[in-house]
Order: sequence, then C-alpha cells, then structure tokens
Amino acid sequence: MKPLALSTVYQLLEPGPVVLLTTAHRGRANVMTMSWHMMVDFVPPLIACVVSNGDFSHTALKATRECTIAIPPADLAATVVEVGNCSGRDVEKFEVFDLTPVPASLIGAPLIRECFANLECKVVDTRLVRQYNIFVLEVLKAWIVPAKRRSKTLHHAGFGRFVVDGDLIKLRSRMK
Amino acid sequence: MKPLALSTVYQLLEPGPVVLLTTAHRGRANVMTMSWHMMVDFVPPLIACVVSNGDFSHTALKATRECTIAIPPADLAATVVEVGNCSGRDVEKFEVFDLTPVPASLIGAPLIRECFANLECKVVDTRLVRQYNIFVLEVLKAWIVPAKRRSKTLHHAGFGRFVVDGDLIKLRSRMK
Repeated sequence: MKPLALSTVYQLLEPGPVVLLTTAHRGRANVMTMSWHMMVDFVPPLIACVVSNGDFSHTALKATRECTIAIPPADLAATVVEVGNCSGRDVEKFEVFDLTPVPASLIGAPLIRECFANLECKVVDTRLVRQYNIFVLEVLKAWIVPAKRRSKTLHHAGFGRFVVDGDLIKLRSRMK
Repeated sequence: MKPLALSTVYQLLEPGPVVLLTTAHRGRANVMTMSWHMMVDFVPPLIACVVSNGDFSHTALKATRECTIAIPPADLAATVVEVGNCSGRDVEKFEVFDLTPVPASLIGAPLIRECFANLECKVVDTRLVRQYNIFVLEVLKAWIVPAKRRSKTLHHAGFGRFVVDGDLIKLRSRMK
C-alpha cells in the first residue's frame, strides 16, 4: 500500500461503493459492512456515515473516535456479505473471514490488506449521533494499492443484490 | 409515474447514484447535480445530503425547506453534466436543458419527467448546515416509472468521469 493524496480521496467514495469499516476497542479489532456514507468536503476529506447504535462498531467508534474505511474490490463480494451478516459481539471477523489486519499509521483501527484503498479516520462531529447515528469523520491518511486502483466496486441495492461497476464514461465537465 | 412504497426508497439511493435536486423559490424552479448524499433511515426514509452554500439551491433549500431528489438514467449523462456546470443564478435550467418539470403532490419543488424516480422531500434537520452544508431530509412521497425502474444509473468519480452500473449480482444475505 502506498500513500494516496488526500485531495483525491473523494474520487473513491463519491461513486458510492460498499465499504468496510474497522474499529479497535479494548484489544479487539472489528469490521462491519457499510453503505450509508457520503463525502462532505474535499480537503481535508470529510465523510459522514451512519453506524447504527445496534451495531457493535457503534460503541467502539464512540469510545475511540477512530476508524478505518476500507474499499473492497468487487471480487470480495462474498466476504462483504458475510461480514455484514454477523456481529463482532459473537465473531472474530478478521480471523473467521480471512481478512488481514494491517497496522494503521495514525490510529488504532487496522487497515485491511485485501482492500485496494484504506482511509484512516477520526471522528470530528457527533452532534447527530444520538438522533440519527450520523458520524462526521476526517480522513487523516489514505492508502492505495496502485496496481488495483481501478478495481471495480460493489453498490448495494438491498437484500444482497449488488450492482458492480460497469463502463466508465468521460464527459467534458467543469465539476470537480 | 406511479407511487413507490416508501420502504423501498433506500434501494434506489443506497447504491450511490448521481441525482438531480430541484427546488422552487420565489416563483423559479431550479435544478442541480448532486453526488454527496446518503441514506440515514429506512422508514420514514431519511436522507442526508450536502448542498454547498456556494450553490444557488442552498438558499432555496434553506428558505423553503423542500426539494425533490430525482434519479436520472445513465442515458441522461450529458444533461446531468450540463446541469452541474452552470448555476441557476444565470440559467433557467429546466428550459435550457429540456427537462420537464412536473408538479409534485406535497411540495413546491417539481419532479422531473425524464428521471425514472422522484422523491418529494422536506428538510427535517439543519444543525449541520452552517458548518458542513449537511441537510437531513425526510422523503414524504416517492414516484417511480415502473417500466424504467431497472434503469442503469451514473456514479461520479470526479471531473466528469462516470461509472455506469454494470452487472447485478445476488448473494444470500440477511442484510436489509
């Protein structure tokens, strides 16, 4: 994994891929599947996401205020579903699902080797957590696997139906 | 357009498509292109989105607390870019870009006939507007064009590069 310029992070998340979110709390790493996230600002990259208070990760995220957002390539779909179908309360997910935790540089939550992009994040706003489970994150450090940067990603459409990235089209635009 | 069950709205937005956001303020309808949005809850459907205070729509959204989120099919890509490349301050976008405004049922902001899904929304939370331009919306009414429900959508990856929906895969999942 190589460092990725923070100014390009939005290009990875704006298309709306399913991501994995890792936390580490009380000596245990955990990972969950997440689709409810959006970019909030370009630089520093800010991300909002919903981590339900029913999720085991919610407690860890509130307590540690750190997480990694990892983007899995489409061929990791089966693992993405398995991770989403169980809770870290009951399962050591990294072990059971053969995901490789890699120490992050600035936070305690691990990166995931099998993901082509990893974003080390800290929580910067919790005002909407109580009512909506919305966390605002700042990306402190971003990592990419250059050879896999163009990996196709997954987009969840409900109940295990995923749209996989198709054609890329390029239009003349002044939009960043 | 036919009514769509509110409980299924998340299946349209969770995959992360580019959308169009319409407003109506002081007798003028306007439309902008938006990719920074996410689901926040299933029923009633709550959506968070970022509408920059540099956008003409920001003022209308704050003043009227209403908008429509319309999902364009991929073949509307050229229009999506044109809409995003100019401001309602200068351009009557519905006219100039041949979009057909359709009166909504519960709000003042129009639906867009050329989009296969339209969501009538009201603003329910503005606590994060000042700092992040994040609005929380509730979907009051949803519309679908049944024959076009499976339209491929666009996902913006920066600077006019769009990923178009590709294959659909279905995995056994307990995730909603």
